[in-house]
Amino acid sequence: MRPRRRAVSDGALSAEAREPRTATLLIMCPDRPGLVAAISGFIYRHGGNILAADQHSDVESGRFYMRVVWDLGGFALDRAGTAAALDALGRDYAMEWDLRYSETQQRVAVLVSKTPHCLYDLLQARQLGELGGDIVGVISNHDDLRSVASHFDVPYVSVPMRAAARDRSESEMQAVLTEWRADLVVLARYMQVLSDKFVDRWQGRLINIHHSFLPAFVGARAYRQARERGVKMIGATAHYVTNELDKGPIIEQDVVRVSHQDTLSDFIRKGRELERIVLTRAVRLHLERRVVVSETGTVVFS
Amino acid sequence: MRPRRRAVSDGALSAEAREPRTATLLIMCPDRPGLVAAISGFIYRHGGNILAADQHSDVESGRFYMRVVWDLGGFALDRAGTAAALDALGRDYAMEWDLRYSETQQRVAVLVSKTPHCLYDLLQARQLGELGGDIVGVISNHDDLRSVASHFDVPYVSVPMRAAARDRSESEMQAVLTEWRADLVVLARYMQVLSDKFVDRWQGRLINIHHSFLPAFVGARAYRQARERGVKMIGATAHYVTNELDKGPIIEQDVVRVSHQDTLSDFIRKGRELERIVLTRAVRLHLERRVVVSETGTVVFS
Amino acid sequence: MRPRRRAVSDGALSAEAREPRTATLLIMCPDRPGLVAAISGFIYRHGGNILAADQHSDVESGRFYMRVVWDLGGFALDRAGTAAALDALGRDYAMEWDLRYSETQQRVAVLVSKTPHCLYDLLQARQLGELGGDIVGVISNHDDLRSVASHFDVPYVSVPMRAAARDRSESEMQAVLTEWRADLVVLARYMQVLSDKFVDRWQGRLINIHHSFLPAFVGARAYRQARERGVKMIGATAHYVTNELDKGPIIEQDVVRVSHQDTLSDFIRKGRELERIVLTRAVRLHLERRVVVSETGTVVFS
Amino acid sequence: MRPRRRAVSDGALSAEAREPRTATLLIMCPDRPGLVAAISGFIYRHGGNILAADQHSDVESGRFYMRVVWDLGGFALDRAGTAAALDALGRDYAMEWDLRYSETQQRVAVLVSKTPHCLYDLLQARQLGELGGDIVGVISNHDDLRSVASHFDVPYVSVPMRAAARDRSESEMQAVLTEWRADLVVLARYMQVLSDKFVDRWQGRLINIHHSFLPAFVGARAYRQARERGVKMIGATAHYVTNELDKGPIIEQDVVRVSHQDTLSDFIRKGRELERIVLTRAVRLHLERRVVVSETGTVVFS
Repeated sequence: MRPRRRAVSDGALSAEAREPRTATLLIMCPDRPGLVAAISGFIYRHGGNILAADQHSDVESGRFYMRVVWDLGGFALDRAGTAAALDALGRDYAMEWDLRYSETQQRVAVLVSKTPHCLYDLLQARQLGELGGDIVGVISNHDDLRSVASHFDVPYVSVPMRAAARDRSESEMQAVLTEWRADLVVLARYMQVLSDKFVDRWQGRLINIHHSFLPAFVGARAYRQARERGVKMIGATAHYVTNELDKGPIIEQDVVRVSHQDTLSDFIRKGRELERIVLTRAVRLHLERRVVVSETGTVVFS
Repeated sequence: MRPRRRAVSDGALSAEAREPRTATLLIMCPDRPGLVAAISGFIYRHGGNILAADQHSDVESGRFYMRVVWDLGGFALDRAGTAAALDALGRDYAMEWDLRYSETQQRVAVLVSKTPHCLYDLLQARQLGELGGDIVGVISNHDDLRSVASHFDVPYVSVPMRAAARDRSESEMQAVLTEWRADLVVLARYMQVLSDKFVDRWQGRLINIHHSFLPAFVGARAYRQARERGVKMIGATAHYVTNELDKGPIIEQDVVRVSHQDTLSDFIRKGRELERIVLTRAVRLHLERRVVVSETGTVVFS
Repeated sequence: MRPRRRAVSDGALSAEAREPRTATLLIMCPDRPGLVAAISGFIYRHGGNILAADQHSDVESGRFYMRVVWDLGGFALDRAGTAAALDALGRDYAMEWDLRYSETQQRVAVLVSKTPHCLYDLLQARQLGELGGDIVGVISNHDDLRSVASHFDVPYVSVPMRAAARDRSESEMQAVLTEWRADLVVLARYMQVLSDKFVDRWQGRLINIHHSFLPAFVGARAYRQARERGVKMIGATAHYVTNELDKGPIIEQDVVRVSHQDTLSDFIRKGRELERIVLTRAVRLHLERRVVVSETGTVVFS
Repeated sequence: MRPRRRAVSDGALSAEAREPRTATLLIMCPDRPGLVAAISGFIYRHGGNILAADQHSDVESGRFYMRVVWDLGGFALDRAGTAAALDALGRDYAMEWDLRYSETQQRVAVLVSKTPHCLYDLLQARQLGELGGDIVGVISNHDDLRSVASHFDVPYVSVPMRAAARDRSESEMQAVLTEWRADLVVLARYMQVLSDKFVDRWQGRLINIHHSFLPAFVGARAYRQARERGVKMIGATAHYVTNELDKGPIIEQDVVRVSHQDTLSDFIRKGRELERIVLTRAVRLHLERRVVVSETGTVVFS
């Protein structure tokens, strides 16, 4: 017997049952007076009730960021009408916008190698209806974690990655991602370097977990370096991937104490606890449209 | 030579130099559509630019809470006009509101006994211009901390507290507070119990620091009790005082690890670190109008 | 394909490969001079090399606690000889002692209801060889988590629990535990109350995870109570079970921040992160013989 | 009226009243069997009762570290006899050792510039008898903090520092430190770079607080860099100073959360909370002889 999705809910209602149909709007534009009034007025005029609103004005860059969620219950505009209205607003205020409807699940693909802890965590969050989206499949350059995906009834595709034939492997992966109609790709301790081309294609939709408190300890040997430097805490960092190694906008970080008693294995064990928590938090924040990439990293409306 | 206020600024500009003249509005009312549009529209129509806005809709109680800060630079309404407009809005939406202008400093009185650590912290925050208000005086039932107040150029009044004559002592304190035109009273490890009458008079404007992670370990012997229970962390809690001992709405809490090696003195020492940090944070949150008392405690817009 | 135990090791060597054959000795006795010299001298005389030693003298109770681990490589005494020597030392110093050999795996049984997060965590730790013992089976009053145990190749026994027939259910569980030769029973969100008789039988070998920062919020509705009290952090507590509800000696605790924005579902989700981490840590500490029950709780040699 | 030292003790007895006369021994040597037995046997044979003992065997480097504290109450050897005995042990085991008697207070000098928060914290810890040593004076390249030292009845010497005449300034400082018979120099946000010569002279006895989570953000602009990188936590690091900037052995670190809402001033304010806590902890650990410099940083027996 396989666990059914949301079969185990600890008394909590599923997200769907709890929440009304909503729209979540993210906007980014130059700051100027009247923005909040314009957005909230637009929603109110068409019968929407605002459930949550957050904004941030960055004084240095003069940029304005806003996230607003409203109840679609009494909202009079349909999707096309809403898009047209937002386009008009966007022209008036030089505004980029992104709109998500709660009934349209985001589709997530997870890339893994041999280490399962982050994958287990993401799949459990999905099973509990807490991820803010669906996991539509797992891709790996190994076969080790097939049974994990299978246990959670998620497709698993093996795409071996050879340095000499990376282009071909990436094309194969891209084909799978296209077939799955993936909206987001999560690197859950995926131990391969991806090409600039692949990274560019998934810009802002490609999240990695790095096993250090960035910007300390870039690269693959982060725990070893941390131990050699004699730090008293180690960290984990979830970030969007860019073409500079471990330099992308940070979404979430956390740390845990270590001491002289901790061997490299202890660092790895303690770090594992962090990695999965930090990655799952970051994925949820992204899927709930709480993250905007800004001049100096990210604005996270949490 | 005494330290002058803000003489030591670590390169940071003082709050006043950095920030424009602003108004901070807190509102509480039954939730209904159009609230954000109404408030932000009102500010925009009169030429105000919103610098920060936070809101919270409590689904269970149906209550709506909002904090909004706007630049008074181009704002066309004067104080009387603004008050009249908010009164009108208040009637329309059954809204309670509280408005603060940045140029009107909140006036804080601190009550202490013999322990100085929280007092030092509050006075340092004031000296750096980081408290969000001014400390206008210190009242104590002892004389021990007079030199601390004096070092920071703050008045110090000694009001001995005898159980038999508490009414008289409290009247004396109240007279001092009235003379100082205090807006907020902070109990910074003040070891006397205050009467219901006094507490009622200062409702919502009387903050205490309790030396435990409430609701665990109510009362004066919290560290001793924590040690006897064998907890692995101890905490501190800043809360508004009500007439039920250590039951008032919680503003802020934090914890620190302890172990079997820690003696009672170690608990006290580690707790002291927490107490002052938690209390100063809570006072700053209150003075910046970030705290609203709600059905189940507080809404803290941080 | 099922994951094989320790197949996924993240580059770390398995515990066995890394570590030599060792003995771990825990002692408890009245404090007096010469104890460390007596223990360390005994080990040295017989050719043992001490790898780790920790001690604690409790000033108030006058009790002495020690944990010492030595390499059995050159150690001249066999098991019987060692036991005899420790018995003699035990008589001289009124000493209780407990000795564990690294090649004898502790055997753990896990009791669950419907919630899988703690079980997944324990089983992953076992799979990585990081638990400090083996999980020999899972018992549940429901059938929901059978597939989880099966995925990790661990036996699963369903023992329905009816209030009216608790004695019979517990006898059935006890028979399974006996058959499995369990050394430790872990309640991993097991939602049934166990009888005094059962608890007494497993005294000091029965670990529970409680979903609050004890002693705050005893009982089943801890998250709900925490939310109603308006706390700013929630916690989890792993403790030995005694016959007083949620009053047993605490092994480990941790906390996470919450805010007014967090619904009861958010409390449950955030708490789940804590529960599994705190429980797995506590089980590992116990299995590595790092925990001694003391007058006021536990001494944890970490 | 000035606060008298330890006048304000929060009910805790002073360290002196609580604790017996003790000796604290730190040893470092190549690991080999019999070390714990040799040390504990030596203490026991002369009538000493061990109050605390900690050891660490570093598997990779093969180094052994130990800290042991014993009651001098019934100890038969005088200081000369103890030193001779330890010299003999030292020869047998190629052991470096360091012995401190509780009645000999360590003498600390604090170097500051204009920022007082760390100085206040150290002076308060001293006043409470919690620092593990005495502060015998404050040296600064400015005059701003004279009143702080004066408030706590500690000498204050102003030694202006000019890049062109650093040698001369450092000679002047060294003369003051010699006169004060300082055992430890603490850089409490001292904003000048010290010469290699000065640093070498105080090697292992010169502690600095750096305003980042090292090794991230070396140098003077750490908060600015942290903000530009968009980290979600900032840290503070106390370390021994060496001739490589911010590369010395780390004693203690801690972190605090930041967000996109935090301005540079907020980073500075939040960092200040950390800096003083981390520095005071590190100084206490050093003075209590809990820190040994090792191959990869420090062994901290806490």
